[in-house]
Amino acid sequence: MRSLRLAVAGLGVVGSETVRLLKSRRESLCRRLGARLELVAVCDRRVAAEARRLGLPASTRRLTDPARLPALPGLDAVVELLGGLDAPRRLVLSCLRRGLGVVTANKRLLAQSWDELRRAAGQGRGRLHFEASVAGGIPILKALDLSLAGDRVEAVYGILNGTTNFILSRMSEGMTPAAALRRAQELGLAEKDPSLDLSGQDSADKVSVLASLVTGSWLRPGQVRTQGIADVGPEDMAFAETELGRRAKLLVVARFTGRDGREPRVEAFVGPALVPLEHPLAAVADEFNAVLVRAASAGDLMFYGKGAGAGPAASAVLGDIMALGRELVSGAAPASPQPGPAPRLADSDCAFYLRLGALDRPGVLSAVTAALGRLGISIATINQPGGCDPKSVPIIITTHPASPGTFGRALRDILALPSISRRHTVMRLLP
Amino acid sequence: MRSLRLAVAGLGVVGSETVRLLKSRRESLCRRLGARLELVAVCDRRVAAEARRLGLPASTRRLTDPARLPALPGLDAVVELLGGLDAPRRLVLSCLRRGLGVVTANKRLLAQSWDELRRAAGQGRGRLHFEASVAGGIPILKALDLSLAGDRVEAVYGILNGTTNFILSRMSEGMTPAAALRRAQELGLAEKDPSLDLSGQDSADKVSVLASLVTGSWLRPGQVRTQGIADVGPEDMAFAETELGRRAKLLVVARFTGRDGREPRVEAFVGPALVPLEHPLAAVADEFNAVLVRAASAGDLMFYGKGAGAGPAASAVLGDIMALGRELVSGAAPASPQPGPAPRLADSDCAFYLRLGALDRPGVLSAVTAALGRLGISIATINQPGGCDPKSVPIIITTHPASPGTFGRALRDILALPSISRRHTVMRLLP
Repeated sequence: MRSLRLAVAGLGVVGSETVRLLKSRRESLCRRLGARLELVAVCDRRVAAEARRLGLPASTRRLTDPARLPALPGLDAVVELLGGLDAPRRLVLSCLRRGLGVVTANKRLLAQSWDELRRAAGQGRGRLHFEASVAGGIPILKALDLSLAGDRVEAVYGILNGTTNFILSRMSEGMTPAAALRRAQELGLAEKDPSLDLSGQDSADKVSVLASLVTGSWLRPGQVRTQGIADVGPEDMAFAETELGRRAKLLVVARFTGRDGREPRVEAFVGPALVPLEHPLAAVADEFNAVLVRAASAGDLMFYGKGAGAGPAASAVLGDIMALGRELVSGAAPASPQPGPAPRLADSDCAFYLRLGALDRPGVLSAVTAALGRLGISIATINQPGGCDPKSVPIIITTHPASPGTFGRALRDILALPSISRRHTVMRLLP
Repeated sequence: MRSLRLAVAGLGVVGSETVRLLKSRRESLCRRLGARLELVAVCDRRVAAEARRLGLPASTRRLTDPARLPALPGLDAVVELLGGLDAPRRLVLSCLRRGLGVVTANKRLLAQSWDELRRAAGQGRGRLHFEASVAGGIPILKALDLSLAGDRVEAVYGILNGTTNFILSRMSEGMTPAAALRRAQELGLAEKDPSLDLSGQDSADKVSVLASLVTGSWLRPGQVRTQGIADVGPEDMAFAETELGRRAKLLVVARFTGRDGREPRVEAFVGPALVPLEHPLAAVADEFNAVLVRAASAGDLMFYGKGAGAGPAASAVLGDIMALGRELVSGAAPASPQPGPAPRLADSDCAFYLRLGALDRPGVLSAVTAALGRLGISIATINQPGGCDPKSVPIIITTHPASPGTFGRALRDILALPSISRRHTVMRLLP
């Protein structure tokens, strides 16, 4: 029986759980694979203590410097769970160039270095698997890459950040954003510095990975229109639920058009969006993740589950180890799809929700509506729910679909009006 | 660039759509695969007319006898979409024994001949893909087989029959079973002879495929406790929704215990079950399918989409063609997992819903409750909603969890009581 020799780099929560499961499920994993899985080395800054804690045998090599891993004799694959960006990048590139298999959960690395990693894998005939980088235990990447390989993916809508979804769920119950964040931190659902989550950056990295996988062409995170949830308040959520029949979610949207002969285009967006209450994504609460894939033939497919945590992430990592194992055991050459033409960035029209704060003064509303009208943006609803502070009376406007660029220009004009405060909330309305 | 030479057997709805998409998506499929996809032959009883309708070039061979397909020179794979059982079985076995790839959507064939197909594939080094056999466009088989290969699947709960789910959805709105069936037939959601759907047999075949895939060991459809929806009436659905907060669904349940050292056990069941209204499966309406997978590490994962129709089925078939193509292009040897120990059949305790019709006569209720009590089955609720017919007054009982075998014995005793009518409804209560 052939052996598959693995090293795990990074013994944090996910790395430890992966090592633990490799041991406890060893027998069934080997049977499914038709090969032996051997953990030959682990690497961590505190490797001695972690290896002791995990009860690893003396035969498992302990390293503190990940740079030494790729040169270990007889190694087949490295599981990269180091965290950070520079050390993982160097490790993964070096492994791929040497023709090793790599499993990583590092979405940041993939989003930032997609092309470089692909090139390294192509040169060295290395193999890269990264299911755990997006939506934790939900097998969305294999679904897009393998199951839907014969279909045409038209759009992906996702709730891919458990932290912000938990915070928004609490806010829709009336909690303040600050209290909701504290609660998330107490439960271990938010980091001490939650800025990557709150700003939408974490979601932008994930949509970059998703879209790059679907089109075969790198979509940089900087090309994703990204907006966080900082401006969304419980008053927006209450108004949306009662008046609009909608719920606010930090949504990831990637749309793919053109292709099959026509010029391919991609549109990617991360930001707070109002989803109709009867939409399946509206029911995704707390720290859960969900992805809705719209495919030309399969129609709408929804995937739902836990997007984070040691168990779900380790499940995805082990699935990748098994996929890599099958490739190696079967003697499969690494896949080499022909890159398609790089899609152009596109923007499609979208209806918007806008909450402004205005001085309680005649003529304000007509100045606001004039600013929208000048740019041809048509208004669907206007509400002035009233407020106690005459210096900042809320005006809530929803528009008919408009181009995001045009809406942005109108918004700049509106915010320049003397009677309008700078504080405002913008959300998209999901059709 | 290498070529992959395909034949499609059966040009019905799914076969035609597959052929159409192979043509219209040819360019992007070939690019993703890094190989050419060539449709070298089609086979159908009315092949001349169908090939003309599909606009196939003269170079595509037209056959009426599927038995001639495997011997076509240079063929790599056959897509079996014939329908029926005998001709598909002969064709698929012959292809696998010759080392050809096979894609099939035939759940009946898989459920009936699992071991025979596996053996043929092993002997001939053929490859068998069958994503479209369960849940149409929902990629549940690849999720279980590939994505969750490193996890431990503990249970699968599914709504896998769109016909019965549509009928039950209409019944929960008050429609009679007969009217709901007619509506389904008008919409093309039910066949003229809907008995395989209504009896639960179609779902039993699907759970056989799912469970065999998860355990690696054939679960025969005859080993699946199977009950149809014939006894469920709109009055059960109304009572369940208002009094129990539950909705009736034709549910597929497969539970896997033991393993990892202990003796593996499998429990499989198809039948009407009452699902709590807040359970994600309760929201799956109309002809949609959904699968909830409970995995030890990933937790609960839900997959939702269209379980039938030309588009969804063709999406799954094309995904399998691409998977097969990747294996062939990469030179991968067919996978050969070691079969695990065959799981024993198990039954776990379950709470039951029972509706009886009784003569309106004193002492009936005490005879019924005594029959349950004698076998140690404890009652959770009793309702006598009243009725206009004194010869058949409804009694609705829900029990605490009991073994299905014991409950069955108690039910036989109850139905033997002189004042109880033979007509009754039994449903399980999903925890």
